[in-house]
Amino acid sequence: MEPRSVGIVTAQVARFEEPFVFRSGRSIPSFELVYETYGRLNAQRSNAVLVCHALNASHHVAGVYADDTAALGWWDNMVGPGKPLDTDRFFVIGVNNLGGCFGSTGPKHPNPATGRPYGADFPVVTVEDWVNAQARLADHLGIARFAAVMGGSLGAMQAMQWAIAYPQRVAHALVIASTPRLSAQNIAFNEVARQAIITDPDFHGGHFYAHGVVPARGLRVARMIGHITYLSDDVMAEKFGRDLRDGLKYGYGTEFQIESYLRYQGEKFSEYFDANTYLLITKALDYFDPAAACGGDLAAALRPAAQVRFLVVSFTTDWRFSPARSREIVDALTANRAEVSYAEIDAPHGHDEFLLEDPRYHALARAYYDAIAETCRP
Amino acid sequence: MEPRSVGIVTAQVARFEEPFVFRSGRSIPSFELVYETYGRLNAQRSNAVLVCHALNASHHVAGVYADDTAALGWWDNMVGPGKPLDTDRFFVIGVNNLGGCFGSTGPKHPNPATGRPYGADFPVVTVEDWVNAQARLADHLGIARFAAVMGGSLGAMQAMQWAIAYPQRVAHALVIASTPRLSAQNIAFNEVARQAIITDPDFHGGHFYAHGVVPARGLRVARMIGHITYLSDDVMAEKFGRDLRDGLKYGYGTEFQIESYLRYQGEKFSEYFDANTYLLITKALDYFDPAAACGGDLAAALRPAAQVRFLVVSFTTDWRFSPARSREIVDALTANRAEVSYAEIDAPHGHDEFLLEDPRYHALARAYYDAIAETCRP
Repeated sequence: MEPRSVGIVTAQVARFEEPFVFRSGRSIPSFELVYETYGRLNAQRSNAVLVCHALNASHHVAGVYADDTAALGWWDNMVGPGKPLDTDRFFVIGVNNLGGCFGSTGPKHPNPATGRPYGADFPVVTVEDWVNAQARLADHLGIARFAAVMGGSLGAMQAMQWAIAYPQRVAHALVIASTPRLSAQNIAFNEVARQAIITDPDFHGGHFYAHGVVPARGLRVARMIGHITYLSDDVMAEKFGRDLRDGLKYGYGTEFQIESYLRYQGEKFSEYFDANTYLLITKALDYFDPAAACGGDLAAALRPAAQVRFLVVSFTTDWRFSPARSREIVDALTANRAEVSYAEIDAPHGHDEFLLEDPRYHALARAYYDAIAETCRP
Repeated sequence: MEPRSVGIVTAQVARFEEPFVFRSGRSIPSFELVYETYGRLNAQRSNAVLVCHALNASHHVAGVYADDTAALGWWDNMVGPGKPLDTDRFFVIGVNNLGGCFGSTGPKHPNPATGRPYGADFPVVTVEDWVNAQARLADHLGIARFAAVMGGSLGAMQAMQWAIAYPQRVAHALVIASTPRLSAQNIAFNEVARQAIITDPDFHGGHFYAHGVVPARGLRVARMIGHITYLSDDVMAEKFGRDLRDGLKYGYGTEFQIESYLRYQGEKFSEYFDANTYLLITKALDYFDPAAACGGDLAAALRPAAQVRFLVVSFTTDWRFSPARSREIVDALTANRAEVSYAEIDAPHGHDEFLLEDPRYHALARAYYDAIAETCRP
């Protein structure tokens, strides 16, 4: 049967009235998580898959909305009936992370202590915090154990963290285009993006909501920097090269196609993404380093995860999180005699490849989920 | 004899009253170039070497100033008595390029048409323009032919352009850590830096001088982005890794050492560099593409340069202008049966290596200049 879209979906809200304590020690008295589900939870509650999002995505993983049929989920090519993560067999959950800007409690929401938006006062989040909040959602949905937790990039860090913190609640972790920790260069790119936002006069120390503005200049620059790191040098050369839009102008308008592309991406992003959420998410990326708690020993950090089965995938042209980083994860898992499959896929698009419909990558994901489906069948 | 510094040097000014026509078609009625010289021009005028600067450097290549003995020239480790480019044998010239911000005519200077600083109205410069202006300086100094023109990065593009435009005036071209053209990714990084500057409210369309401000926020971000591309991932990992300054703070102050380093570099740069010059120089980088005039055929573009002898040097960890880019230059020269030596130096520091005192690199430069000295001896 031809793969189809899950069609029209509806976001739901889960409200949690117990306080949430962040890794930083700060807490919020209550919170909400916005989520979507696709497919049906089986009677044994054994077919649930959590899909974790990366930097700029959300709970809207697949399908469209009744009132906006153009708003396709960010991983619609992966999730749906007959797709690699087949919603005819799995109950798939997408969730907007805590601190996000697509409905879950975050900087745009009122701080109960002041009645005004949290802004930059929203507690700094970590991957650990997100996973702990997702565990509450799992409780809320009555899911004791996920058939799989899956993500790419920062999403994959959450899958890893699930395996470390809640190994008894995860059968499989799919860790795609990821790293056990950011390098100095990765942190450097995040820091430049943050500085662009924070030094934008419209940022107002993170309390721009009250001023009726957004730090659009900073967000644009931040997104442009990010975009460069998501694409491979080769694919940029192939897509844009040194092509000009309309001849040499000897000025600061848009001359090269790559400039036009980046400006467009920056502009679009600045229109919908919250600046405080961007800061929070880059910090969560920077902080993630499970080995740190074990004196830098990644194998020791992953020891609790050894009972979880792993699929680790990397892409040859990913220079943000290169295959060598994924191999570190594989080596640490292997040292714990964990069951781990690893694929290094020769693909041109760099880090962004994890979002694309690469046939070898999708065939691999499909085969892996086929095998999982066997094990969670009633 | 131990290598020494050239000691105290004095900048000089050459004034040109003939109009200068830029590649863009625009012109300025007159201009000045600030330059320094080290060593003595021999009676045959055959021992002159022009050192071309890259993005943020200047005419101040070697030595110090009487009133500022801490202001060491940017290539002092390369140029001086007993150094690889030995000022006991060569007459070395450093020049601040047209459009620069260290004394040569540029955006900070009054536009004769308005009496106010040129600002963003200064004509957009190209590598070709710089070389044409440098040729006027050579005339002024009575130098018909350089023993060598040398540069790293953007400076090396000028050395290449000298060999293409004035092959009869250059015996040797030393082309270090360079490329025959920027890639889409290279242009992308420049464009983000430009957008950071141009969208800084203190930029005022390039006429910030009249407002008594400088677009420091934009300059800081631009410099931070640049710095990431100058260093290798490995050397950043080694120098900074994930080291923290003072523990995790869960906030947006400086946490990681790499953040501290980048902020410091950005801050320092924004205090002395002119924003309009930064824009001009990134544009000159983007435009440089001698092959474009020959339908993309670099060998055809370098045909006029075949009579010049070349030393091309690249560094293994340079990901801004990788060794593959230098090999393109070498291949195109070889196709013209030009005399070319090529060295790919295994060195850790990335693009910045060209400025450092790498022993193999310096030994190579020394040997090359020794050979040149033989040929220009009376």
